[in-house]
Amino acid sequence: MRTAIYPGSFDPITNGHLDLMRRALNLFDKLVVAIADNPDKEYLFTTEERERMVKQSLKGLDRVEVLVFSGLLADLAKKTDAVAIIRGLRAISDFEFEFQMALMNRNLAPKAETLFLVPSERYTYLSSSLIKDIARFDGKIGEFVPGIVEEMLKKKFGFM
Amino acid sequence: MRTAIYPGSFDPITNGHLDLMRRALNLFDKLVVAIADNPDKEYLFTTEERERMVKQSLKGLDRVEVLVFSGLLADLAKKTDAVAIIRGLRAISDFEFEFQMALMNRNLAPKAETLFLVPSERYTYLSSSLIKDIARFDGKIGEFVPGIVEEMLKKKFGFM
Amino acid sequence: MRTAIYPGSFDPITNGHLDLMRRALNLFDKLVVAIADNPDKEYLFTTEERERMVKQSLKGLDRVEVLVFSGLLADLAKKTDAVAIIRGLRAISDFEFEFQMALMNRNLAPKAETLFLVPSERYTYLSSSLIKDIARFDGKIGEFVPGIVEEMLKKKFGFM
Amino acid sequence: MRTAIYPGSFDPITNGHLDLMRRALNLFDKLVVAIADNPDKEYLFTTEERERMVKQSLKGLDRVEVLVFSGLLADLAKKTDAVAIIRGLRAISDFEFEFQMALMNRNLAPKAETLFLVPSERYTYLSSSLIKDIARFDGKIGEFVPGIVEEMLKKKFGFM
Amino acid sequence: MRTAIYPGSFDPITNGHLDLMRRALNLFDKLVVAIADNPDKEYLFTTEERERMVKQSLKGLDRVEVLVFSGLLADLAKKTDAVAIIRGLRAISDFEFEFQMALMNRNLAPKAETLFLVPSERYTYLSSSLIKDIARFDGKIGEFVPGIVEEMLKKKFGFM
Amino acid sequence: MRTAIYPGSFDPITNGHLDLMRRALNLFDKLVVAIADNPDKEYLFTTEERERMVKQSLKGLDRVEVLVFSGLLADLAKKTDAVAIIRGLRAISDFEFEFQMALMNRNLAPKAETLFLVPSERYTYLSSSLIKDIARFDGKIGEFVPGIVEEMLKKKFGFM
Repeated sequence: MRTAIYPGSFDPITNGHLDLMRRALNLFDKLVVAIADNPDKEYLFTTEERERMVKQSLKGLDRVEVLVFSGLLADLAKKTDAVAIIRGLRAISDFEFEFQMALMNRNLAPKAETLFLVPSERYTYLSSSLIKDIARFDGKIGEFVPGIVEEMLKKKFGFM
Repeated sequence: MRTAIYPGSFDPITNGHLDLMRRALNLFDKLVVAIADNPDKEYLFTTEERERMVKQSLKGLDRVEVLVFSGLLADLAKKTDAVAIIRGLRAISDFEFEFQMALMNRNLAPKAETLFLVPSERYTYLSSSLIKDIARFDGKIGEFVPGIVEEMLKKKFGFM
Repeated sequence: MRTAIYPGSFDPITNGHLDLMRRALNLFDKLVVAIADNPDKEYLFTTEERERMVKQSLKGLDRVEVLVFSGLLADLAKKTDAVAIIRGLRAISDFEFEFQMALMNRNLAPKAETLFLVPSERYTYLSSSLIKDIARFDGKIGEFVPGIVEEMLKKKFGFM
Repeated sequence: MRTAIYPGSFDPITNGHLDLMRRALNLFDKLVVAIADNPDKEYLFTTEERERMVKQSLKGLDRVEVLVFSGLLADLAKKTDAVAIIRGLRAISDFEFEFQMALMNRNLAPKAETLFLVPSERYTYLSSSLIKDIARFDGKIGEFVPGIVEEMLKKKFGFM
Repeated sequence: MRTAIYPGSFDPITNGHLDLMRRALNLFDKLVVAIADNPDKEYLFTTEERERMVKQSLKGLDRVEVLVFSGLLADLAKKTDAVAIIRGLRAISDFEFEFQMALMNRNLAPKAETLFLVPSERYTYLSSSLIKDIARFDGKIGEFVPGIVEEMLKKKFGFM
Repeated sequence: MRTAIYPGSFDPITNGHLDLMRRALNLFDKLVVAIADNPDKEYLFTTEERERMVKQSLKGLDRVEVLVFSGLLADLAKKTDAVAIIRGLRAISDFEFEFQMALMNRNLAPKAETLFLVPSERYTYLSSSLIKDIARFDGKIGEFVPGIVEEMLKKKFGFM
């Protein structure tokens, strides 16, 4: 059985993330969605909220485990016996940082290969931070995020 | 009549911004210079100061309207009936983010096309933040910003 | 009246080109589609074929003039009194060369501003050369090119 | 059983290619190494030579099939029931073209996901064309290519 | 005698920095390692700690002067009569910002040429911030930083 | 005494090349301008013409040696005892290839460090091939190339 990890902040999860997860599930037997809880980073949603949104969005997707982690991704990769770390590549600026992380993670956890996938071109311009920028001003985001995320963003920004 | 918007922080306005505005005015009948007032962002100058510097720098340029906006650029584009959103492209890293914004704004305001212009090569290395870094240590900036901006930077950093 | 030029090889014209032309027509009064006839370059289609495909694809689009040019784009810009040269930006590697051309053309024809537009994300991965690579092996290209182009590609590669 | 394809010119195969193949074999049950035979491209080595070098270099690697293909990669992906197309990412300029190809191949063969892997940093600066440039002048290449490739390059350029 | 400056935060110094310093010393008679003390920036280590780590790491390297500076790099370049400013280029995203800084510094201090060097590929994925991210979770960093840095990181994060 | 090499095709030499040479001469005691004679490459000008244009353009510049080389740059670097290989960086796409070459040359000739310099922003958009494209149609190039180059281009393209 081959396991892949898909790490991220998921602050909040978007349809672009879901698109990648579905693609990863065609390639591996199990997908661990690893929600980063980094004490040095400021999130819009709490860890619990982010976890709840991810879990609800993944209902109906088999072979997926959702967990929260803090610490090194490389350590999580070892603990879960992952053979792959999944990352989405939308743009060059993603690539730079991702490339550096991939090489460092290989050094720290040689058995987990970092794999870059290209999301659907419908999601090329989608990112969690852009979604938050739009939701903050009550812009329409329904086609970019799962229903629960749209709802929680509206609540967070006082439009509901 | 075709209107274009040129949005930005203008914290402060530079000769590179003015160069782009002049180019945009050759292409459209009216130019709306839209000064962003984003509550989540920290500016060196207050909104009023930024507006004053822009207005004074634009004296003598016809067919220009200066306004302050908060909220979504896409909403402003609709309200002003703009057919174009003007952005300067100096560098690749600009391009990445700009590309993403352009696609998202098209989704939110389909009638306003994002146009990228190349500033004069004299301003390739010019940015508001670089200007502030230099002015902070009383470096010479006279050839990069309008007179009023040079003066207000000197005051702000206590050299006048 | 403001005229824009959209130069290219159009070997052959694709739906991505048509998308950009429609966008440019919202911004300017007249669009000159300028088909490059560069003796040093090898084309799949003859100049006449490329012109015929462009003209047929543009049927129904008003305010467009199609012409063939050899020589400097800057000279054509002067001759047609163009205020803008339209270029599509799909990718970083486009950007590099385009940036250089834009600065050189500004030097040679200061009155024509180069404007970069972002094509629809549906056409992000579309290029004339990719289309030819696929058509060569009878791959399906119907959603990427006008009907006449599909037909002429099939003929050219012996599938019709 | 999950199959991945690793397509390329392999003109000639390098240790960077072998590094990627080993990584891909950790991720999938079977790897199809697909040597492109493109009539429009000029190769240094004949198809037979390229195939021989690949096969000899892969001796000892299980679960690998080597084949020559002309035509569309997407068609080969369908024929081999591949769930993944493996590509190495060394540099940004790779990325641009690869991104475009990945989206087009997804359109033509939706079941095969393109995966980008990062080669070992020891091979960051390695490419088949660089190897040929060096071998042409009898430069040392022993650490970059398998023994049979070094030998065949020396013969090809008359140093043996 | 030709002097070069190598400016940086060195928060903390890594083996990648040391690699560049050794390369710079082959090119110039004297190397000034200039530790930036920018009041607007938050550092993990104090200026004194950063200076101590740099000095200890450089023991045995001749012709090097270590100093702390705040203010404009261009002013320091003039004061030290430097003919060169040394910068490492690991990645494209470095390049963008560095390019802009190089042009601005040339404007402010025309006699000091900015030179970009490529670090050893062993250090391609190395950066001070990545080191801190790993050290924070007690990951192994011994091969990437001098002994004193490893020790001080462990102390800083409470693992010693 | 420290020697640097500046290799290139110089087909033809431009003011951008001369700008870089002057900068390199401030950094090193001697500059070897190495004109590549690559049998696999097609040049507009013969090796003799390129050499003549370079030598005439360099009249008055001291401490410069002009030579023609075929073979590996790394071998030339060893033969001339060069400590540095000078390359100009105008753009990202330059950077990619240059980076790869720098790492390979370091492997082949460890004593010669590749140094990247930024040309004057006046020459950002200048390249030999762009110059040839313009000269071919008798466009004005006087401000971009030395007098002898302008003359020889006019002759080559039949305008004199």
